[in-house]
Amino acid sequence: MPSSFRVELPPNRCEVRVGTGLLEDCGELARRSGVDAGRCAVITDANVAPYYLESTISSLRAAGFDPVGVEIKAGELSKSLSTLGEIFDRLVEHELDRRSSIFALGGGVVGDIAGLTASTFMRGVALVQVPTTLVGQVDSALGGKNGVNHRDAKNLIGTFYQPRLVIADIGTLTTLPEREFREGLAEVIKYGAILDVRMVEDLEREMPAIVARDPQALDAIVSRSLRHKADVIERDEREHGRRALLNFGHTIGHALESSSGYGKLLHGEAVSIGIGAAARLSRRLAGFPADQERRLLKLLRAAGLPVELPDNWQRQSFIRALRLDKKRSEGAINFILLSEIGRAVIRRLTLDQILDGLQ
Amino acid sequence: MPSSFRVELPPNRCEVRVGTGLLEDCGELARRSGVDAGRCAVITDANVAPYYLESTISSLRAAGFDPVGVEIKAGELSKSLSTLGEIFDRLVEHELDRRSSIFALGGGVVGDIAGLTASTFMRGVALVQVPTTLVGQVDSALGGKNGVNHRDAKNLIGTFYQPRLVIADIGTLTTLPEREFREGLAEVIKYGAILDVRMVEDLEREMPAIVARDPQALDAIVSRSLRHKADVIERDEREHGRRALLNFGHTIGHALESSSGYGKLLHGEAVSIGIGAAARLSRRLAGFPADQERRLLKLLRAAGLPVELPDNWQRQSFIRALRLDKKRSEGAINFILLSEIGRAVIRRLTLDQILDGLQ
Repeated sequence: MPSSFRVELPPNRCEVRVGTGLLEDCGELARRSGVDAGRCAVITDANVAPYYLESTISSLRAAGFDPVGVEIKAGELSKSLSTLGEIFDRLVEHELDRRSSIFALGGGVVGDIAGLTASTFMRGVALVQVPTTLVGQVDSALGGKNGVNHRDAKNLIGTFYQPRLVIADIGTLTTLPEREFREGLAEVIKYGAILDVRMVEDLEREMPAIVARDPQALDAIVSRSLRHKADVIERDEREHGRRALLNFGHTIGHALESSSGYGKLLHGEAVSIGIGAAARLSRRLAGFPADQERRLLKLLRAAGLPVELPDNWQRQSFIRALRLDKKRSEGAINFILLSEIGRAVIRRLTLDQILDGLQ
Repeated sequence: MPSSFRVELPPNRCEVRVGTGLLEDCGELARRSGVDAGRCAVITDANVAPYYLESTISSLRAAGFDPVGVEIKAGELSKSLSTLGEIFDRLVEHELDRRSSIFALGGGVVGDIAGLTASTFMRGVALVQVPTTLVGQVDSALGGKNGVNHRDAKNLIGTFYQPRLVIADIGTLTTLPEREFREGLAEVIKYGAILDVRMVEDLEREMPAIVARDPQALDAIVSRSLRHKADVIERDEREHGRRALLNFGHTIGHALESSSGYGKLLHGEAVSIGIGAAARLSRRLAGFPADQERRLLKLLRAAGLPVELPDNWQRQSFIRALRLDKKRSEGAINFILLSEIGRAVIRRLTLDQILDGLQ
């Protein structure tokens, strides 16, 4: 069932569309959302381009756009200022102007760098997110966060910049490699854990259909996740309060990701380990019941996700990464814990408290 | 007379302070404006640092800040993605976090790159503009535009990001080299030309005191210019309409600046030539009286500014630069003309019409 809804983020409005086969209509959908049908760039990566770039370009041409494809290398290493510079070169070559638009066709990496591109090119042009991964569809494409990495910290350089339109074509999830598919489930489970106990129950029941990539099951989890995300960011776009809940599992996840060397752990895998550690800390510090902790770990495992620290874990570089965390301020870190499944709380924890939670 | 006023740019508010000797109080002024007195970076350049970095750092320390000085090379060439990367390295070294703040101590170049830094570091930290040049004080420090250059286009990469506070210390204008001082007068004359015929009359009368850098005369033109700018951006922060008037003289100015090779013409000098050309075009296309055109040229010359194309003008690279202009869309350029002194109009001109205006 294709679904569509709007997210109100004054003065901006973002339209969200979820369904199968939407990619072929992306030009028309963008037009109808008010994006000027002029010059545009489709930023994508080497993994996604062979599958979807041509059909995206055709759809844009058919709707009157003049698109150029900009292909970056796949992977987290592309989230750099130097790749950003290369993208700008291509936009200038194709003579994009202030009325032009940027389409992000790919996963989280493409969405993040394309978002920053759109936000900083000529002080901001229209952005359309076309996520082709589960992580992108359920999380990163909506909400306006973007960024590239500093060698010492993930997403250190970025802005808040809302897309005009998010097109989540469920069909693209069929071509996703197994590991990339499963990592997206960490974000799905996160929404249930912090906001929606019913969703956790449904996930426990539906996980076999989900991992078999049943289209109906996928449509349901993508729509449900996006509505949760929309609800949170409508109330707190800039993460002054409630939006921080979405960082559940991410404080440790990000530090693990950057300290294990970019690319060794996938983002969702690191988040899954982070959720495991946060569940343990929740039991110790926030009264989270032990049986609910076990349920959460079981659900992550059923999704094929890791919940233990990797063997090559580097304690010292992990600590350094944690200290650089954006949520850190003056020694303590705002950390998300659960008091029960579906109910998250924010606590200020010291580095030592967090490190204790890792074992 | 020190003056202070607020600019309302919902959801942001910017405080503006103009006066002599304010630099010594900048820490306290920032604190009172609600900037967290924690870690901060003072971005400055090699020209300004010897005069004002130490006193700024002292003032910040006295107010409880933990500042680090970040010195970039002076000049337009520093407005690059690679300098931005170097600045981020320093911020990470000094362990700035989301509650930290960025102080821009210098002219337009420093203000532009420091603004982009503050806007993109951890998705946005507090920004205080401390302009030490006349261009900075009367124009670039207020309004939230920032950017770095692409080799083919000025300010191609940037955002809109409002400072919390602008501190214009008139005293810093005394150490400004003659040419840098005079270029700022192009922006001052611009406000009069597009918005305020009385201001033009006053400038005609006061120009000798102004070029002699009489403190009272300077305080008056800085305050008056900033109030005009504040008034324009309060009504149109994102340049959807009225703010475009401030581009008077700048469309040709920017193209001249980038096509003459960065740094050969100063920004204000290029703008002055651009104002001269725009006045000529205004006479031909917008009924601007010939005697008012002469008055405007005379005033620019009295300020010691050029109004003719430089000898080494490169027509082809000028045209290419003009085509890349951010205000271009679909072949024509939104161009600011005068119907009389104090009254600006926006017209869509073709490249050929603009080129005709150059002689």
